[in-house]
Amino acid sequence: MAFTTTHTVRFQHCDPAEIVFYPRYYEMLNATIEEWFDTRLVWSFAEIHGPMDRGVPTVAHETVFLKPSRLGERLDFTLTPTHIGGSSVKLLVEVTCDGEPRVRFNTTLVWFAKSDGRPRPWPDELRAGMTREMTLETEGDAR
Amino acid sequence: MAFTTTHTVRFQHCDPAEIVFYPRYYEMLNATIEEWFDTRLVWSFAEIHGPMDRGVPTVAHETVFLKPSRLGERLDFTLTPTHIGGSSVKLLVEVTCDGEPRVRFNTTLVWFAKSDGRPRPWPDELRAGMTREMTLETEGDAR
Amino acid sequence: MAFTTTHTVRFQHCDPAEIVFYPRYYEMLNATIEEWFDTRLVWSFAEIHGPMDRGVPTVAHETVFLKPSRLGERLDFTLTPTHIGGSSVKLLVEVTCDGEPRVRFNTTLVWFAKSDGRPRPWPDELRAGMTREMTLETEGDAR
Amino acid sequence: MAFTTTHTVRFQHCDPAEIVFYPRYYEMLNATIEEWFDTRLVWSFAEIHGPMDRGVPTVAHETVFLKPSRLGERLDFTLTPTHIGGSSVKLLVEVTCDGEPRVRFNTTLVWFAKSDGRPRPWPDELRAGMTREMTLETEGDAR
Repeated sequence: MAFTTTHTVRFQHCDPAEIVFYPRYYEMLNATIEEWFDTRLVWSFAEIHGPMDRGVPTVAHETVFLKPSRLGERLDFTLTPTHIGGSSVKLLVEVTCDGEPRVRFNTTLVWFAKSDGRPRPWPDELRAGMTREMTLETEGDAR
Repeated sequence: MAFTTTHTVRFQHCDPAEIVFYPRYYEMLNATIEEWFDTRLVWSFAEIHGPMDRGVPTVAHETVFLKPSRLGERLDFTLTPTHIGGSSVKLLVEVTCDGEPRVRFNTTLVWFAKSDGRPRPWPDELRAGMTREMTLETEGDAR
Repeated sequence: MAFTTTHTVRFQHCDPAEIVFYPRYYEMLNATIEEWFDTRLVWSFAEIHGPMDRGVPTVAHETVFLKPSRLGERLDFTLTPTHIGGSSVKLLVEVTCDGEPRVRFNTTLVWFAKSDGRPRPWPDELRAGMTREMTLETEGDAR
Repeated sequence: MAFTTTHTVRFQHCDPAEIVFYPRYYEMLNATIEEWFDTRLVWSFAEIHGPMDRGVPTVAHETVFLKPSRLGERLDFTLTPTHIGGSSVKLLVEVTCDGEPRVRFNTTLVWFAKSDGRPRPWPDELRAGMTREMTLETEGDAR
Protein backbone atom coordinates (compact mmCIF):
# COMPACT_ATOMS: atom_id res chain seq x y z
CA MET A 1 0.00 0.00 0.00
CA ALA A 2 1.12 3.56 -0.71
CA PHE A 3 2.49 5.37 2.33
CA THR A 4 -0.13 7.24 4.35
CA THR A 5 0.21 9.17 7.59
CA THR A 6 -2.30 11.23 9.55
CA HIS A 7 -1.94 14.76 10.93
CA THR A 8 -4.55 16.18 13.30
CA VAL A 9 -5.23 19.88 12.73
CA ARG A 10 -3.99 21.53 15.91
CA PHE A 11 -4.49 25.03 17.26
CA GLN A 12 -0.98 25.94 16.11
CA HIS A 13 -1.96 25.28 12.47
CA CYS A 14 -4.99 27.57 12.40
CA ASP A 15 -5.26 31.25 11.58
CA PRO A 16 -7.78 33.97 12.46
CA ALA A 17 -9.96 32.77 9.56
CA GLU A 18 -10.20 29.55 11.64
CA ILE A 19 -8.72 27.39 8.90
CA VAL A 20 -5.27 25.87 8.40
CA PHE A 21 -2.73 28.60 7.59
CA TYR A 22 -1.10 27.22 4.43
CA PRO A 23 2.57 27.40 5.55
CA ARG A 24 1.55 24.88 8.23
CA TYR A 25 0.48 22.46 5.47
CA TYR A 26 4.06 22.55 4.20
CA GLU A 27 5.31 21.65 7.67
CA MET A 28 2.94 18.66 7.60
CA LEU A 29 4.11 17.85 4.06
CA ASN A 30 7.73 17.87 5.18
CA ALA A 31 6.96 15.72 8.23
CA THR A 32 5.18 13.28 5.89
CA ILE A 33 8.19 12.99 3.59
CA GLU A 34 10.46 12.64 6.62
CA GLU A 35 8.35 9.85 8.07
CA TRP A 36 8.34 8.16 4.66
CA PHE A 37 12.15 8.18 4.64
CA ASP A 38 12.25 6.96 8.25
CA THR A 39 9.84 4.06 7.79
CA ARG A 40 9.84 3.02 4.11
CA LEU A 41 13.28 3.91 2.76
CA VAL A 42 16.78 3.01 3.85
CA TRP A 43 17.94 5.93 5.96
CA SER A 44 16.25 8.29 8.38
CA PHE A 45 16.50 12.08 8.09
CA ALA A 46 18.69 11.99 11.23
CA GLU A 47 21.19 9.70 9.50
CA ILE A 48 21.07 11.60 6.21
CA HIS A 49 21.60 15.05 7.72
CA GLY A 50 24.03 13.85 10.37
CA PRO A 51 26.83 11.38 9.59
CA MET A 52 26.08 11.17 5.84
CA ASP A 53 26.33 14.94 5.28
CA ARG A 54 23.53 14.77 2.73
CA GLY A 55 20.21 16.60 2.41
CA VAL A 56 17.03 16.47 0.32
CA PRO A 57 16.02 20.09 -0.27
CA THR A 58 12.86 20.92 -2.18
CA VAL A 59 13.37 22.58 -5.55
CA ALA A 60 9.78 23.02 -6.74
CA HIS A 61 6.16 22.81 -5.65
CA GLU A 62 2.87 22.79 -7.48
CA THR A 63 0.13 22.93 -4.92
CA VAL A 64 -3.63 23.14 -5.20
CA PHE A 65 -5.64 23.93 -2.08
CA LEU A 66 -9.06 22.44 -2.82
CA LYS A 67 -10.97 22.98 0.41
CA PRO A 68 -10.07 24.53 3.77
CA SER A 69 -9.41 22.35 6.83
CA ARG A 70 -10.51 23.14 10.36
CA LEU A 71 -9.35 22.69 13.96
CA GLY A 72 -9.59 19.09 15.15
CA GLU A 73 -9.93 17.48 11.71
CA ARG A 74 -7.78 14.45 10.91
CA LEU A 75 -5.97 14.76 7.60
CA ASP A 76 -4.57 11.76 5.72
CA PHE A 77 -1.43 12.42 3.67
CA THR A 78 -0.79 9.78 0.98
CA LEU A 79 2.59 9.88 -0.75
CA THR A 80 3.59 8.29 -4.04
CA PRO A 81 6.73 8.92 -6.13
CA THR A 82 5.79 9.79 -9.70
CA HIS A 83 9.21 10.22 -11.34
CA ILE A 84 12.75 9.33 -10.27
CA GLY A 85 15.58 11.25 -11.97
CA GLY A 86 19.35 10.96 -11.60
CA SER A 87 19.44 13.00 -8.40
CA SER A 88 15.84 14.14 -8.05
CA VAL A 89 12.42 12.69 -7.31
CA LYS A 90 8.89 13.95 -7.89
CA LEU A 91 6.35 13.12 -5.23
CA LEU A 92 2.59 13.37 -5.33
CA VAL A 93 1.11 13.93 -1.89
CA GLU A 94 -2.66 13.96 -1.63
CA VAL A 95 -4.38 15.23 1.49
CA THR A 96 -7.88 14.05 2.31
CA CYS A 97 -10.25 14.25 5.26
CA ASP A 98 -12.66 11.32 5.48
CA GLY A 99 -11.95 10.79 1.80
CA GLU A 100 -12.69 14.38 0.77
CA PRO A 101 -9.77 15.92 -1.15
CA ARG A 102 -8.26 18.98 0.55
CA VAL A 103 -4.78 19.63 -0.88
CA ARG A 104 -2.71 18.18 -3.69
CA PHE A 105 1.06 18.67 -3.66
CA ASN A 106 3.45 17.87 -6.48
CA THR A 107 6.86 18.40 -5.00
CA THR A 108 10.37 17.84 -6.35
CA LEU A 109 13.32 16.99 -4.13
CA VAL A 110 17.01 16.61 -4.90
CA TRP A 111 19.69 14.54 -3.22
CA PHE A 112 22.58 16.86 -2.47
CA ALA A 113 25.77 17.15 -0.45
CA LYS A 114 25.62 19.66 2.39
CA SER A 115 29.38 20.30 2.12
CA ASP A 116 29.24 21.85 -1.37
CA GLY A 117 25.49 22.28 -1.94
CA ARG A 118 25.60 20.30 -5.19
CA PRO A 119 23.38 17.40 -6.33
CA ARG A 120 24.64 13.83 -6.15
CA PRO A 121 23.36 10.69 -7.88
CA TRP A 122 20.91 8.74 -5.72
CA PRO A 123 22.59 5.88 -3.84
CA ASP A 124 21.43 2.55 -5.29
CA GLU A 125 19.60 1.56 -2.09
CA LEU A 126 17.56 4.75 -2.06
CA ARG A 127 16.74 4.49 -5.75
CA ALA A 128 15.62 0.89 -5.29
CA GLY A 129 13.48 1.84 -2.29
CA MET A 130 11.78 4.72 -4.10
CA THR A 131 11.21 2.58 -7.22
CA ARG A 132 9.51 -0.06 -5.07
CA GLU A 133 7.27 2.67 -3.62
CA MET A 134 6.19 3.75 -7.12
CA THR A 135 4.77 0.34 -7.86
CA LEU A 136 2.59 0.50 -4.76
CA GLU A 137 0.55 3.24 -6.38
CA THR A 138 -2.21 1.22 -8.04
CA GLU A 139 -5.06 3.62 -8.59
CA GLY A 140 -3.88 4.31 -12.14
CA ASP A 141 -5.62 7.64 -12.57
CA ALA A 142 -4.34 10.20 -15.06
CA ARG A 143 -2.65 12.50 -12.60
CA MET B 1 -1.79 7.25 34.99
CA ALA B 2 -0.83 10.85 34.32
CA PHE B 3 -1.36 11.96 30.73
CA THR B 4 1.65 11.35 28.45
CA THR B 5 2.04 11.92 24.74
CA THR B 6 5.03 11.55 22.45
CA HIS B 7 6.45 14.00 19.92
CA THR B 8 9.16 12.95 17.49
CA VAL B 9 11.73 15.67 16.82
CA ARG B 10 11.25 16.51 13.17
CA PHE B 11 13.36 18.53 10.76
CA GLN B 12 10.98 21.47 11.17
CA HIS B 13 11.83 21.67 14.90
CA CYS B 14 15.62 21.90 14.48
CA ASP B 15 17.86 24.91 14.02
CA PRO B 16 21.33 25.40 12.50
CA ALA B 17 22.83 24.33 15.86
CA GLU B 18 21.14 20.97 15.03
CA ILE B 19 19.03 21.00 18.20
CA VAL B 20 15.36 21.79 18.81
CA PHE B 21 14.73 25.53 18.39
CA TYR B 22 12.94 26.39 21.65
CA PRO B 23 9.82 28.08 20.18
CA ARG B 24 9.08 24.67 18.63
CA TYR B 25 9.00 23.15 22.15
CA TYR B 26 6.15 25.54 22.93
CA GLU B 27 4.27 24.30 19.86
CA MET B 28 4.72 20.74 21.20
CA LEU B 29 3.65 21.95 24.67
CA ASN B 30 0.50 23.48 23.25
CA ALA B 31 -0.30 20.36 21.22
CA THR B 32 0.17 18.32 24.42
CA ILE B 33 -2.29 20.47 26.36
CA GLU B 34 -4.71 20.35 23.43
CA GLU B 35 -4.53 16.56 23.24
CA TRP B 36 -5.07 16.41 27.01
CA PHE B 37 -8.27 18.43 26.63
CA ASP B 38 -9.36 16.30 23.67
CA THR B 39 -8.80 12.93 25.32
CA ARG B 40 -8.99 13.39 29.12
CA LEU B 41 -11.28 16.35 29.72
CA VAL B 42 -14.83 17.10 28.66
CA TRP B 43 -14.49 19.25 25.57
CA SER B 44 -12.05 19.38 22.66
CA PHE B 45 -10.27 22.58 21.64
CA ALA B 46 -12.48 22.57 18.51
CA GLU B 47 -15.62 22.68 20.66
CA ILE B 48 -14.18 25.23 23.10
CA HIS B 49 -12.98 27.69 20.46
CA GLY B 50 -15.94 27.13 18.16
CA PRO B 51 -19.52 26.92 19.44
CA MET B 52 -18.62 27.64 23.09
CA ASP B 53 -16.79 30.92 22.29
CA ARG B 54 -14.26 30.18 25.02
CA GLY B 55 -10.46 29.98 25.02
CA VAL B 56 -7.63 28.93 27.32
CA PRO B 57 -4.82 31.44 26.76
CA THR B 58 -1.50 31.06 28.56
CA VAL B 59 -0.74 33.79 31.11
CA ALA B 60 2.63 32.63 32.45
CA HIS B 61 5.47 30.18 31.86
CA GLU B 62 8.44 29.10 33.89
CA THR B 63 10.58 26.89 31.73
CA VAL B 64 13.91 25.18 32.31
CA PHE B 65 15.71 23.67 29.34
CA LEU B 66 17.88 20.97 30.88
CA LYS B 67 19.46 19.29 27.87
CA PRO B 68 19.17 19.82 24.10
CA SER B 69 17.16 17.42 21.91
CA ARG B 70 18.15 16.26 18.47
CA LEU B 71 16.57 15.28 15.13
CA GLY B 72 14.76 11.93 15.28
CA GLU B 73 14.55 11.67 19.07
CA ARG B 74 11.21 10.73 20.63
CA LEU B 75 10.20 13.05 23.45
CA ASP B 76 7.62 12.08 26.09
CA PHE B 77 5.51 14.94 27.45
CA THR B 78 3.87 14.13 30.81
CA LEU B 79 1.24 16.59 32.05
CA THR B 80 -0.14 16.98 35.58
CA PRO B 81 -2.23 19.84 36.97
CA THR B 82 -0.61 21.26 40.13
CA HIS B 83 -3.13 23.96 41.14
CA ILE B 84 -6.69 24.74 40.10
CA GLY B 85 -7.92 28.28 40.76
CA GLY B 86 -11.27 29.93 40.12
CA SER B 87 -10.61 30.48 36.44
CA SER B 88 -7.00 29.34 36.08
CA VAL B 89 -4.96 26.16 36.24
CA LYS B 90 -1.24 25.50 36.69
CA LEU B 91 0.20 22.61 34.76
CA LEU B 92 3.53 20.87 35.13
CA VAL B 93 4.72 19.36 31.88
CA GLU B 94 7.91 17.32 32.01
CA VAL B 95 9.71 16.32 28.84
CA THR B 96 11.96 13.30 28.82
CA CYS B 97 13.79 11.19 26.23
CA ASP B 98 14.26 7.56 27.29
CA GLY B 99 13.75 8.78 30.84
CA GLU B 100 16.35 11.55 30.64
CA PRO B 101 14.89 14.95 31.60
CA ARG B 102 15.05 17.53 28.82
CA VAL B 103 12.60 20.36 29.59
CA ARG B 104 10.37 21.28 32.52
CA PHE B 105 7.43 23.63 31.93
CA ASN B 106 5.27 25.23 34.60
CA THR B 107 2.51 26.91 32.67
CA THR B 108 -0.61 28.80 33.78
CA LEU B 109 -3.78 28.89 31.69
CA VAL B 110 -7.00 30.81 32.17
CA TRP B 111 -10.53 30.04 31.04
CA PHE B 112 -11.85 33.10 29.26
CA ALA B 113 -14.60 34.30 26.94
CA LYS B 114 -13.45 35.21 23.44
CA SER B 115 -16.26 37.76 23.11
CA ASP B 116 -14.99 40.10 25.85
CA GLY B 117 -11.53 38.66 26.62
CA ARG B 118 -12.33 38.28 30.34
CA PRO B 119 -11.84 35.25 32.60
CA ARG B 120 -14.80 33.06 33.52
CA PRO B 121 -15.19 30.53 36.36
CA TRP B 122 -14.36 26.99 35.25
CA PRO B 123 -17.48 24.99 34.29
CA ASP B 124 -18.07 22.28 36.91
CA GLU B 125 -17.39 19.46 34.43
CA LEU B 126 -13.97 20.86 33.51
CA ARG B 127 -13.04 21.50 37.14
CA ALA B 128 -14.05 17.96 38.05
CA GLY B 129 -12.05 16.54 35.14
CA MET B 130 -8.92 18.51 36.02
CA THR B 131 -9.24 17.61 39.71
CA ARG B 132 -9.40 13.94 38.78
CA GLU B 133 -6.22 14.39 36.72
CA MET B 134 -4.39 15.87 39.73
CA THR B 135 -4.90 12.72 41.74
CA LEU B 136 -3.27 10.64 39.00
CA GLU B 137 0.04 12.29 39.78
CA THR B 138 1.55 9.87 42.28
CA GLU B 139 5.28 10.49 42.18
CA GLY B 140 5.04 12.79 45.22
CA ASP B 141 8.29 14.63 44.58
CA ALA B 142 8.90 18.11 45.96
CA ARG B 143 8.22 20.03 42.78
CA MET C 1 7.55 51.03 -8.71
CA ALA C 2 6.42 47.47 -8.03
CA PHE C 3 6.02 46.68 -4.35
CA THR C 4 9.20 45.34 -2.69
CA THR C 5 9.86 44.46 0.92
CA THR C 6 12.90 42.93 2.61
CA HIS C 7 13.09 39.96 4.99
CA THR C 8 16.31 39.17 6.83
CA VAL C 9 16.97 35.43 7.17
CA ARG C 10 16.75 34.80 10.91
CA PHE C 11 17.76 31.82 12.99
CA GLN C 12 14.10 30.77 13.19
CA HIS C 13 13.99 30.32 9.40
CA CYS C 14 16.99 27.98 9.12
CA ASP C 15 17.18 24.21 9.35
CA PRO C 16 19.96 21.74 10.21
CA ALA C 17 21.15 21.97 6.60
CA GLU C 18 21.85 25.64 7.52
CA ILE C 19 19.57 26.99 4.82
CA VAL C 20 16.05 28.45 4.90
CA PHE C 21 13.50 25.71 5.64
CA TYR C 22 10.99 26.20 2.82
CA PRO C 23 7.79 26.50 4.93
CA ARG C 24 9.42 29.64 6.38
CA TYR C 25 9.57 31.12 2.86
CA TYR C 26 5.78 30.81 2.73
CA GLU C 27 5.52 32.73 6.00
CA MET C 28 7.66 35.47 4.42
CA LEU C 29 5.48 35.28 1.27
CA ASN C 30 2.33 35.72 3.31
CA ALA C 31 3.84 38.64 5.28
CA THR C 32 4.79 40.22 1.94
CA ILE C 33 1.24 39.97 0.59
CA GLU C 34 -0.12 41.27 3.91
CA GLU C 35 2.22 44.26 3.83
CA TRP C 36 1.19 44.91 0.23
CA PHE C 37 -2.48 45.03 1.27
CA ASP C 38 -1.60 47.24 4.25
CA THR C 39 0.45 49.78 2.35
CA ARG C 40 -0.62 49.74 -1.33
CA LEU C 41 -4.26 48.64 -1.34
CA VAL C 42 -7.35 49.97 0.38
CA TRP C 43 -7.74 47.82 3.48
CA SER C 44 -5.33 46.18 5.89
CA PHE C 45 -5.51 42.48 6.77
CA ALA C 46 -6.73 43.55 10.24
CA GLU C 47 -9.71 45.36 8.69
CA ILE C 48 -10.43 42.59 6.18
CA HIS C 49 -10.38 39.74 8.70
CA GLY C 50 -12.03 41.75 11.45
CA PRO C 51 -15.03 44.03 10.83
CA MET C 52 -15.36 43.12 7.12
CA ASP C 53 -15.60 39.35 7.75
CA ARG C 54 -13.63 38.68 4.58
CA GLY C 55 -10.46 36.68 3.90
CA VAL C 56 -8.01 36.09 1.07
CA PRO C 57 -7.06 32.41 1.26
CA THR C 58 -4.51 30.94 -1.13
CA VAL C 59 -5.89 28.41 -3.61
CA ALA C 60 -2.75 27.50 -5.58
CA HIS C 61 1.01 27.86 -5.64
CA GLU C 62 3.65 27.20 -8.24
CA THR C 63 7.01 27.70 -6.63
CA VAL C 64 10.54 27.26 -7.88
CA PHE C 65 13.38 27.31 -5.37
CA LEU C 66 16.38 28.38 -7.43
CA LYS C 67 19.14 28.71 -4.84
CA PRO C 68 19.29 28.22 -1.07
CA SER C 69 19.43 31.21 1.29
CA ARG C 70 21.51 31.42 4.45
CA LEU C 71 21.39 32.93 7.94
CA GLY C 72 21.79 36.70 7.94
CA GLU C 73 21.08 37.25 4.23
CA ARG C 74 18.67 40.01 3.24
CA LEU C 75 16.02 38.84 0.79
CA ASP C 76 14.03 41.24 -1.39
CA PHE C 77 10.47 40.15 -2.19
CA THR C 78 8.99 41.93 -5.24
CA LEU C 79 5.26 41.49 -5.85
CA THR C 80 3.31 42.11 -9.04
CA PRO C 81 -0.25 41.03 -9.88
CA THR C 82 -0.31 39.14 -13.19
CA HIS C 83 -4.03 38.40 -13.59
CA ILE C 84 -7.19 39.72 -11.90
CA GLY C 85 -10.28 37.52 -12.10
CA GLY C 86 -13.81 38.02 -10.78
CA SER C 87 -12.91 37.00 -7.26
CA SER C 88 -9.30 35.87 -7.61
CA VAL C 89 -5.89 37.34 -8.32
CA LYS C 90 -2.61 35.81 -9.46
CA LEU C 91 0.53 37.27 -7.98
CA LEU C 92 4.14 36.83 -9.04
CA VAL C 93 6.53 37.23 -6.15
CA GLU C 94 10.21 37.10 -6.96
CA VAL C 95 12.80 36.72 -4.22
CA THR C 96 16.33 37.93 -4.78
CA CYS C 97 19.45 38.50 -2.68
CA ASP C 98 21.70 41.26 -4.00
CA GLY C 99 19.96 40.74 -7.33
CA GLU C 100 20.54 36.98 -7.45
CA PRO C 101 17.26 35.06 -7.94
CA ARG C 102 16.42 32.69 -5.09
CA VAL C 103 12.71 31.80 -5.26
CA ARG C 104 9.87 32.48 -7.67
CA PHE C 105 6.29 32.16 -6.44
CA ASN C 106 3.16 32.22 -8.57
CA THR C 107 0.33 32.30 -6.11
CA THR C 108 -3.44 32.57 -6.53
CA LEU C 109 -5.67 34.17 -3.90
CA VAL C 110 -9.44 34.45 -3.70
CA TRP C 111 -11.64 37.01 -2.01
CA PHE C 112 -14.10 35.14 0.17
CA ALA C 113 -16.59 35.57 3.00
CA LYS C 114 -15.53 33.98 6.27
CA SER C 115 -19.18 33.45 7.25
CA ASP C 116 -19.97 30.97 4.46
CA GLY C 117 -16.51 30.23 3.01
CA ARG C 118 -17.61 31.20 -0.50
CA PRO C 119 -15.92 33.54 -3.01
CA ARG C 120 -17.22 37.07 -3.51
CA PRO C 121 -16.61 39.52 -6.36
CA TRP C 122 -13.75 41.92 -5.62
CA PRO C 123 -14.96 45.25 -4.25
CA ASP C 124 -14.38 47.98 -6.85
CA GLU C 125 -11.79 49.78 -4.71
CA LEU C 126 -9.67 46.63 -4.34
CA ARG C 127 -9.93 45.79 -8.02
CA ALA C 128 -8.90 49.33 -8.94
CA GLY C 129 -5.97 49.18 -6.51
CA MET C 130 -4.72 45.85 -7.82
CA THR C 131 -5.12 46.99 -11.44
CA ARG C 132 -3.01 50.05 -10.71
CA GLU C 133 -0.33 47.76 -9.23
CA MET C 134 -0.25 45.68 -12.44
CA THR C 135 0.75 48.69 -14.48
CA LEU C 136 3.75 49.30 -12.22
CA GLU C 137 5.28 46.10 -13.48
CA THR C 138 7.36 47.37 -16.37
CA GLU C 139 9.93 44.68 -17.03
CA GLY C 140 7.72 43.18 -19.72
CA ASP C 141 9.24 39.71 -19.73
CA ALA C 142 7.23 36.68 -20.81
CA ARG C 143 6.59 35.23 -17.37
CA MET D 1 19.43 53.97 24.95
CA ALA D 2 18.44 50.39 25.63
CA PHE D 3 17.98 48.29 22.51
CA THR D 4 14.43 48.36 21.09
CA THR D 5 13.05 46.77 17.95
CA THR D 6 9.52 46.60 16.58
CA HIS D 7 7.55 43.59 15.35
CA THR D 8 4.23 44.01 13.58
CA VAL D 9 1.68 41.34 14.48
CA ARG D 10 1.16 39.46 11.22
CA PHE D 11 -1.46 36.93 10.18
CA GLN D 12 1.06 34.13 10.73
CA HIS D 13 1.30 35.03 14.45
CA CYS D 14 -2.43 34.87 15.18
CA ASP D 15 -4.60 31.95 16.25
CA PRO D 16 -8.32 31.20 16.00
CA ALA D 17 -8.86 33.24 19.18
CA GLU D 18 -7.62 36.13 16.97
CA ILE D 19 -4.70 36.93 19.29
CA VAL D 20 -0.99 36.19 19.06
CA PHE D 21 -0.33 32.46 19.57
CA TYR D 22 2.33 32.49 22.28
CA PRO D 23 4.98 30.32 20.55
CA ARG D 24 5.11 33.12 17.96
CA TYR D 25 6.11 35.57 20.72
CA TYR D 26 9.17 33.40 21.32
CA GLU D 27 10.06 33.63 17.64
CA MET D 28 9.85 37.43 17.97
CA LEU D 29 11.90 37.23 21.19
CA ASN D 30 14.60 35.22 19.45
CA ALA D 31 14.66 37.60 16.48
CA THR D 32 15.02 40.48 18.95
CA ILE D 33 18.02 38.88 20.66
CA GLU D 34 19.50 38.06 17.27
CA GLU D 35 19.12 41.63 16.06
CA TRP D 36 20.70 42.83 19.32
CA PHE D 37 23.74 40.65 18.65
CA ASP D 38 23.87 41.80 15.02
CA THR D 39 23.66 45.52 15.73
CA ARG D 40 24.92 46.17 19.29
CA LEU D 41 27.42 43.42 20.04
CA VAL D 42 30.56 42.23 18.29
CA TRP D 43 29.44 39.31 16.17
CA SER D 44 26.30 38.47 14.23
CA PHE D 45 24.43 35.19 14.70
CA ALA D 46 25.67 34.20 11.22
CA GLU D 47 29.30 34.58 12.32
CA ILE D 48 28.72 32.90 15.69
CA HIS D 49 26.92 29.84 14.32
CA GLY D 50 29.07 29.59 11.20
CA PRO D 51 32.87 30.00 11.31
CA MET D 52 33.05 30.40 15.13
CA ASP D 53 31.21 27.11 15.85
CA ARG D 54 29.53 28.71 18.85
CA GLY D 55 25.88 29.06 19.85
CA VAL D 56 23.75 30.84 22.46
CA PRO D 57 21.00 28.39 23.44
CA THR D 58 18.32 29.40 25.92
CA VAL D 59 18.41 27.55 29.24
CA ALA D 60 15.51 29.17 31.08
CA HIS D 61 12.50 31.46 30.64
CA GLU D 62 10.18 33.19 33.03
CA THR D 63 7.44 34.79 31.02
CA VAL D 64 4.35 36.74 31.98
CA PHE D 65 1.73 37.40 29.33
CA LEU D 66 -0.05 40.53 30.59
CA LYS D 67 -2.47 41.34 27.78
CA PRO D 68 -3.23 39.75 24.41
CA SER D 69 -2.03 41.33 21.15
CA ARG D 70 -3.98 41.51 17.93
CA LEU D 71 -3.45 41.44 14.16
CA GLY D 72 -1.82 44.60 12.83
CA GLU D 73 -0.56 45.93 16.18
CA ARG D 74 3.04 47.14 16.40
CA LEU D 75 4.90 45.68 19.36
CA ASP D 76 8.07 47.25 20.79
CA PHE D 77 10.59 44.80 22.25
CA THR D 78 13.08 46.47 24.65
CA LEU D 79 16.06 44.36 25.75
CA THR D 80 18.39 44.92 28.72
CA PRO D 81 20.90 42.50 30.22
CA THR D 82 20.30 42.12 33.97
CA HIS D 83 23.10 39.74 34.97
CA ILE D 84 26.26 38.52 33.24
CA GLY D 85 27.76 35.26 34.50
CA GLY D 86 30.88 33.36 33.47
CA SER D 87 29.24 31.81 30.43
CA SER D 88 25.62 32.96 30.78
CA VAL D 89 23.57 36.14 30.58
CA LYS D 90 20.11 37.05 31.85
CA LEU D 91 18.06 39.33 29.65
CA LEU D 92 14.91 41.23 30.44
CA VAL D 93 12.78 41.81 27.35
CA GLU D 94 9.68 43.92 27.80
CA VAL D 95 7.03 44.04 25.10
CA THR D 96 4.73 47.03 24.85
CA CYS D 97 2.16 48.38 22.39
CA ASP D 98 1.85 52.17 22.44
CA GLY D 99 3.39 52.01 25.91
CA GLU D 100 0.95 49.40 27.24
CA PRO D 101 2.76 46.36 28.69
CA ARG D 102 1.95 43.10 26.91
CA VAL D 103 4.63 40.52 27.74
CA ARG D 104 7.63 40.38 30.07
CA PHE D 105 10.37 37.84 29.38
CA ASN D 106 13.26 36.98 31.68
CA THR D 107 15.45 34.72 29.62
CA THR D 108 18.83 33.10 30.30
CA LEU D 109 21.28 32.26 27.53
CA VAL D 110 24.60 30.45 27.61
CA TRP D 111 27.63 30.71 25.38
CA PHE D 112 28.51 27.20 24.23
CA ALA D 113 30.56 25.28 21.69
CA LYS D 114 28.50 23.47 19.05
CA SER D 115 31.21 20.81 18.69
CA ASP D 116 30.85 19.40 22.22
CA GLY D 117 27.68 21.14 23.49
CA ARG D 118 29.48 22.52 26.56
CA PRO D 119 29.54 26.11 27.92
CA ARG D 120 32.55 28.33 27.32
CA PRO D 121 33.61 31.55 29.08
CA TRP D 122 32.35 34.64 27.29
CA PRO D 123 34.99 36.14 24.98
CA ASP D 124 36.20 39.48 26.42
CA GLU D 125 34.73 41.49 23.55
CA LEU D 126 31.26 40.03 24.07
CA ARG D 127 31.40 40.48 27.83
CA ALA D 128 32.47 44.12 27.36
CA GLY D 129 29.67 44.71 24.86
CA MET D 130 27.00 43.21 27.11
CA THR D 131 28.32 45.11 30.14
CA ARG D 132 28.05 48.35 28.20
CA GLU D 133 24.44 47.48 27.32
CA MET D 134 23.61 47.00 31.04
CA THR D 135 24.55 50.57 31.82
CA LEU D 136 22.11 51.84 29.20
CA GLU D 137 19.25 50.59 31.33
CA THR D 138 18.49 53.69 33.38
CA GLU D 139 14.97 53.21 34.66
CA GLY D 140 16.30 51.78 37.93
CA ASP D 141 13.19 49.82 38.88
CA ALA D 142 13.42 46.79 41.14
CA ARG D 143 13.02 44.17 38.46
